[in-house]
Parts: sequence; structure tokens; C-alpha cells
Amino acid sequence: MNFYREFRVLPASKVKLKKIDASYHGDLDDGDAALPLIEEYKKKLRELQYRMYAEHKRSLLICLQGRDAAGKDGAINHVLGAMNPQGCTVTGFKQPSKAEAEHDFLWRCHKVTPRRGHVAIFNRSHYEDVLVQRVHKLVPKKVWSGRFAHINNFERLLADNDTTVLKFYLHIDAQEQLERFKKRIDDPTKHWKISESDYSEAHYWDEYTDAFEDVLEKCSTEYAPWFIIPANKKWFRNLAISQIVVSALESLDMQFPKPTVDIDSIRQKYHALSAAVDDAGPDRKNKGSKK
Amino acid sequence: MNFYREFRVLPASKVKLKKIDASYHGDLDDGDAALPLIEEYKKKLRELQYRMYAEHKRSLLICLQGRDAAGKDGAINHVLGAMNPQGCTVTGFKQPSKAEAEHDFLWRCHKVTPRRGHVAIFNRSHYEDVLVQRVHKLVPKKVWSGRFAHINNFERLLADNDTTVLKFYLHIDAQEQLERFKKRIDDPTKHWKISESDYSEAHYWDEYTDAFEDVLEKCSTEYAPWFIIPANKKWFRNLAISQIVVSALESLDMQFPKPTVDIDSIRQKYHALSAAVDDAGPDRKNKGSKK
Repeated sequence: MNFYREFRVLPASKVKLKKIDASYHGDLDDGDAALPLIEEYKKKLRELQYRMYAEHKRSLLICLQGRDAAGKDGAINHVLGAMNPQGCTVTGFKQPSKAEAEHDFLWRCHKVTPRRGHVAIFNRSHYEDVLVQRVHKLVPKKVWSGRFAHINNFERLLADNDTTVLKFYLHIDAQEQLERFKKRIDDPTKHWKISESDYSEAHYWDEYTDAFEDVLEKCSTEYAPWFIIPANKKWFRNLAISQIVVSALESLDMQFPKPTVDIDSIRQKYHALSAAVDDAGPDRKNKGSKK
Repeated sequence: MNFYREFRVLPASKVKLKKIDASYHGDLDDGDAALPLIEEYKKKLRELQYRMYAEHKRSLLICLQGRDAAGKDGAINHVLGAMNPQGCTVTGFKQPSKAEAEHDFLWRCHKVTPRRGHVAIFNRSHYEDVLVQRVHKLVPKKVWSGRFAHINNFERLLADNDTTVLKFYLHIDAQEQLERFKKRIDDPTKHWKISESDYSEAHYWDEYTDAFEDVLEKCSTEYAPWFIIPANKKWFRNLAISQIVVSALESLDMQFPKPTVDIDSIRQKYHALSAAVDDAGPDRKNKGSKK
């Protein structure tokens, strides 16, 4: 199972989402079978993130897109929650604020791209501007269709600056979306986040399909690939994403930087300090101090 | 075991750190005994954070302070890593940048206080300005001693804005610090982060003790308490911090907000959508759509 290769959209290839089985789960039977693998990838992810932080040369940007209830939040919680929050920021892109809308569509995204050594996760992203804005005709075709090139240029800039860009489309089918909507209706602790728009948006299913297919066809590049993740099964979605991220980070062959100090001289300092502490006792009050 | 009560510094009380056993571990024998409790608190923490996010009224600020190798990073990774990164930011405060140094000392901290519904964790904090700056005489006494009042005023502002402020001093003794330094020397994957200053700072042990005691005595308030966490044992540190955070959040009695929609009408919309999907089949192409 090499999900990186299996789910990657090759540059300039044609995408027909309805031909892709959203319930696909490889050769694994169920979540129990996947659990040890998921744990293994989460552990690797943590180690790789530590190495990226230490190396302080590269960064990682993960974009998550999908229809309502596709599992963007879930993917962030379960898979990427494995990362050390100190090296990781998550930004959700909702309707632009007034200040944001006064700039070009990439402005608010650029501000929160990952700094060196860090990971940034976008929950939705700059792609909203060729998805919701297109489907609801908020901008003319000339505007949204021009954005694909801007997006590719932007992502190339990031890639040239040693940012690994990975983009995941979480692929669910209409039946699965309905079942998830139903679960929200049946769970009182979720009522607060139900909005009318979940239901009105669902009626634009085909329009979103067209918009997503265009995104996947036009913006999956060598330097910033899209992956189509079968996401009806949450455990499979978690497994596939974590394997792909691990695989991308492993290929970077990141190295711990050389120490900035001479370790032998540090060993000597350590022994000197050790003698001072032994001399003074555990609380050291008034001894071994430079006061 | 009520660690909130046990480790909280009462306002205006006297603190003698050398009288506090850094190896204290309550009535638990070892990390294995603590593990199920830690897992339970982590689960609660996640639920409470979700509720805070949903309620969208309050926020939480956690400050971690301690000597080098006291376990600030470890506490963030293990305990607070339980939180959903989407509702949580972590900021490390190192030496101020040039731009930061051109403002008052609270400026850079204020910018990253938690927004409504969110959690912010400070790895070091505004307290550095009455710790390292005092110990190394970077500012005159008149300046640093005036900062305690500024800090209390700042934290009151946050508390009045429904931010729960919890501050943890991770208490280790000199022997434990030495052992941790030794582990870093012995582990090649940690060499990159060893700095000379670890060793030079350790010689200021007593000066830091005085500075921390002042902080704990002057800035543990009703609205922003300090806790002294015995932190020689990492598992105990994790247990104590998570229990205290859970306990503070539980006392807020946070409620899920009322739905913004009428759930009965949503149920009807759901049934209508369901019928459309059944009619069109799982991929829905050209059916049930508003195109």
C-alpha cells in the first residue's frame, strides 16, 4: 500500500469523482486492522516533525478540502493531533472578514503559511475562492478562472522556499454525507453547529463536483500535489493521510543540525556544575552561586 | 487528591521553594499507576475544550514557567497535546525580537492572548521580564519591580474578559536539572539544542530562586493563580497539570449554545434532501441538483 502514489492526482490528468469509490479501504478490513498502522504513522509523524523543527530549514503546509461533513475537522483532530502543537498552527478559512475582503484572495493565506521548521494546516484554504465563490457566482467566471494560475504561482513560491505543500480532497459520497447530517441532528451536543446552509449547499452537489474536478485537474502540480482520499470510512481517511504525510516528509531526508557548541567542552562544564551541586546539596541556597 | 487546592499559591502568601519537595508524587507509586488517571483527564480536557469552543464565550490562557530543563516542552507535548490543535495556539517567548523590544514588555504577549472559545499556551511568558531580565540586570530594579503591578493589571483585564488564566511553575531541584542536562549530552539527537547558556544560567540558581519566589508571592491572584507543580517526576507533573486545568474548566459550567436553527425544520429539510439523493443514486450526477 503506497497511498502517496495511489491517491496522488498526476499533473494535468483528468478527474471524474463519481468514478472514484469513496468507500474504498484498500486491503484492510476495518478500523481495528488499521489502528496499529495509524499509531505507527502517528509516531513517525511526531518524530519527523521534531526533525523538521530541529533542522529549521523546511516547512510543511497541509490543505484540507471537501464537502460539508467530509471530515476535515476529524482528520485534523485524529491524524494531525499527533503533532506537537508547538510546531504547528491550524487556520480555518471561513467567509472572509471585511478586512480580508479588501485584499487579493491569497493575502489572508500568505500571512499564515508555515515559518521555517513549522507545520501549518489549512482547514479549507485559498481554494475556497475557486469553489464556493464559483458555485454561488460571487465573482464572474473571468475572475475565478484566472485564479488557478495565481494559486499555482503562489504554491510554487512556497515550494521554492522549501515548503512541502500537500493538499487533500476528502472524498465522500452523497449517502455518506446524509448519514453524517443525520448524526448531527440526532446528537444534541452538535445542534449548536447545524446551519441552514448545510442543507442548501447539499443541493449544489453537482456544481461542487465540477468545481472540485477543475481544482484537482488544474492545480495538482509536481511541487504541490493534490491527493483524493476515499473518506467514507474515517479510519481509512486517517490512515491514508498520515501515511502520505509521513512518506512526503521521509523523502526530504532531514538531518539534525550540527551542535552549535563543542560537546566535549560542554561535558566539562557539566562536570564542574555537577561538583558545585554536590557540594551545595539539592537546594543549593547560598552555595555554588554567583550572587 | 485535589491538586488545584494543594498546589495553588494563595494570594500574598510567602513562598520558600527550597522547602517544597520537587519529587513529591502524592499517594501514587509510579507512572504506571498514574497513566489511567492521566488518560481520563486528557479525555475530559478534550471534551471541555470542545465545549469552550462551542460556547464561544470564554477562553483559557496557560502560562508555563520553570528553570531550564524543568519540562515546559514536555508538559505541552504530553498533557496539552490532548487538545484539538484547531482551538489552541502555543507561543514560545524567547529573547524579544528587535521589533518587540521597541514596545512595552506586555505588547508581544497581548497580541497572542486567546480569542473567544480558544486556548492559548505560553511557553515562558511575560514573566520572563521579571526573571531573566532581573537576574542578569538587563533593566534596573526600579523597572522590573514596577512590572509586577503591570502584570497583575494585565491579567485582570484578561480575566474580566472571561479568560481563565492558569500559571504553572514547574519545580525541579538542582540534581534533577543536572540529570536532564546529562541526558541531553548523551543523546546525539539532542545535541543541536544544547547551548552554553544552559550551563551559565545554572550558576544563577539562587538568583532565579529569589526571582521566582517574588513572582509567586506577588502575582498569584484570585483571578490568575500560580500553581507550584512538583516536576522532578514527569508523570506526576503531567497528572497534576491536567487535573488542575480540568478542574478549572469544570468550574466554569460551560453550556452548549442553543441551536441557531429550528431543529424540526432541519429534520424536514433532511428528509427532503434524503429523498432527492435516493432518487438520484449515490453520485447524483445531473439529478437533484439546482444546476
